[in-house]
Amino acid sequence: MAAPFYLDNAASTRLHPEVLEAALPFLRDCYGNPSSLHPLGMQARRVVKGARETLARLLGAPPQAVTFTAGGTESCNLALQGAFASARLKGQRLLVSAIEHPAVLETAQRLAATGVDVRRIPVTAGGIVDLAALEALLDGDVRVVSVMALNNELGTAQPIEAIGRLLARVAPRTVFHVDAVQAFTKLPVNWRAAGVHLLSLSGHKVHGPKGVGALVRLRPVPLEPLIAGGGQEGGLRSGTENVFGIVALGHAAQRTTALHAAQREQRCGYADAWLTELAGQPRVEVFRSEAATPFIISFSLEPIPGEVILHHLEQEGLYVSTGSACASAKPEPSHVLLAAGLSERRALSSIRLSFSVFNTLDELPAVLPAFRRAMERLQRL
Amino acid sequence: MAAPFYLDNAASTRLHPEVLEAALPFLRDCYGNPSSLHPLGMQARRVVKGARETLARLLGAPPQAVTFTAGGTESCNLALQGAFASARLKGQRLLVSAIEHPAVLETAQRLAATGVDVRRIPVTAGGIVDLAALEALLDGDVRVVSVMALNNELGTAQPIEAIGRLLARVAPRTVFHVDAVQAFTKLPVNWRAAGVHLLSLSGHKVHGPKGVGALVRLRPVPLEPLIAGGGQEGGLRSGTENVFGIVALGHAAQRTTALHAAQREQRCGYADAWLTELAGQPRVEVFRSEAATPFIISFSLEPIPGEVILHHLEQEGLYVSTGSACASAKPEPSHVLLAAGLSERRALSSIRLSFSVFNTLDELPAVLPAFRRAMERLQRL
Repeated sequence: MAAPFYLDNAASTRLHPEVLEAALPFLRDCYGNPSSLHPLGMQARRVVKGARETLARLLGAPPQAVTFTAGGTESCNLALQGAFASARLKGQRLLVSAIEHPAVLETAQRLAATGVDVRRIPVTAGGIVDLAALEALLDGDVRVVSVMALNNELGTAQPIEAIGRLLARVAPRTVFHVDAVQAFTKLPVNWRAAGVHLLSLSGHKVHGPKGVGALVRLRPVPLEPLIAGGGQEGGLRSGTENVFGIVALGHAAQRTTALHAAQREQRCGYADAWLTELAGQPRVEVFRSEAATPFIISFSLEPIPGEVILHHLEQEGLYVSTGSACASAKPEPSHVLLAAGLSERRALSSIRLSFSVFNTLDELPAVLPAFRRAMERLQRL
Repeated sequence: MAAPFYLDNAASTRLHPEVLEAALPFLRDCYGNPSSLHPLGMQARRVVKGARETLARLLGAPPQAVTFTAGGTESCNLALQGAFASARLKGQRLLVSAIEHPAVLETAQRLAATGVDVRRIPVTAGGIVDLAALEALLDGDVRVVSVMALNNELGTAQPIEAIGRLLARVAPRTVFHVDAVQAFTKLPVNWRAAGVHLLSLSGHKVHGPKGVGALVRLRPVPLEPLIAGGGQEGGLRSGTENVFGIVALGHAAQRTTALHAAQREQRCGYADAWLTELAGQPRVEVFRSEAATPFIISFSLEPIPGEVILHHLEQEGLYVSTGSACASAKPEPSHVLLAAGLSERRALSSIRLSFSVFNTLDELPAVLPAFRRAMERLQRL
């Protein structure tokens, strides 16, 4: 097997070696409980505080706005379940886009079972939230609107600023939750200025470790906790702090934000090289809209099933996903691709390439020929 | 500052170096998402499966009985909230002992706010669940009984087998949840044979990392998830798996169980040396009952506040806690110590020594004189 070209960064990213190095002492040596009063506890408490301040500074929020969780899924659950459990928030309707991650869609479904009026905001054929349709849905009693900032399957950037302006104008009491699991560190959006209330983040999508994330309250929002206990995280999320994970998330957020900022031009050049390569491939259809970003490219080669394409790419050392990783074990076509207007057959033939700060222009002379070799075999099927 | 004698293992334990070594590749190299279909994903999926099998084997349960969580607190929340959210379980009463951890007590309080009839099972002056009082409380419509197996402040082992027998006789449909966060790997109980349905575990109390735990269904119990999403963990706990944490928990569970088994005699000798030392100290009162274990010793030196004792011990390199770590920032006396019959003044003067596999007989010739030096100064206050 050839050395892998890892192109599955929307599923999970490589822990940055410098992040690991910076956080490893909090696995190895500093094993105190942050609630303990002795030096090993105080040191743990201090570095958790430091990571909280780093994340808050990056997002222009006060430190107490940051609640560390076990990941993006828990953050989305805390945002939605927490807002609907709070008696201080009004409205019984929840609006979610049709292309949200299961962390939002499944939570919405559970809330619907408790009487919440859940409505889906349709998306255009470009995979972009339809603002006129959203405005029409805002006529009711809307407590929360939840939209993913950078779609994990299509790579489309959603119009977060425009949605924020619309909400400020039409529904100023509605809580705006943004699932920024894919967008964080990549899109240079000022989330707070955009009118976002709640932002969900994940460590392992930004070169941090799995098992840690955050929910950030960019504006004050009353929330009920999901997990009760010792009162950690200001009472919003109990349980002994994952000190290593939190420290690593702080470092990863800072480091990866800087790397993406420095690589902005290179990232476009890298994606363009792929788009040129794909354009030269017969029968290949690329999903690309005006909201495309250079982080994710989705393409299909009908009627070949995605799993078969994946297998051939893997033989050349290219590691990719079919649709989203979370859904890739299921045989059904992705709800996201269908919502964006793809046929069922095309959706089932789709492959996602997703890039990280480790995918640099330097690898193109090796990865593109490897891709071409796999495609030559696939074209003959 | 002298080299620390870490005697705060009920708050958190040192990650075992061999556990770190075994699990580190899953931070460093194997960064795939277990849901991905390429080799990096499949390898991650395989090792998560392996850790699940290890934990299941140690507990005599099938692998699918193990649900990995972010820690003991989440496990306890999932057990209690999950059981009360399930329409398939009957009964509206929840019985919790008076000396439970906040992970159980606070969850019970939240359930009470939703209409659950929460009752506290009193404990004897020895800090042991009162079986006659429990039986009297079982006359109603009890859905769940929750009892901690090894108390984190008193060190008392609770009569889990006797409670299991009582439930089998009087309330066979009642779900028996055991918070085994402190007991796991230490007490040689066959939890399944004891009639336990749900067992909550934590990684960082058994020389694993913080941020991982498990809820184990030793008998089939319908539960509703707390966290919805991609359907990981058999749909009971969504979110990308914390591969490193899960692998480390598997290794830690196995290794620490073996170490505690091998050290059983040494552990008693070690605790006895402390008890002898404490017995020789004027004014020191040790909490010790017939259910005491050699893992935790609680003592007081009235009227000196626990914080002052802690500070003097720390100056000699002894790291301890006052009451439980989670509550140690609060000025109120521990609810556990009060429930076990201690006066408020004595509870506020209490110090907890808690031991791990790294506290061996070898350290006694160094740690006891250091303790004595601190106590000499404290006795003069």
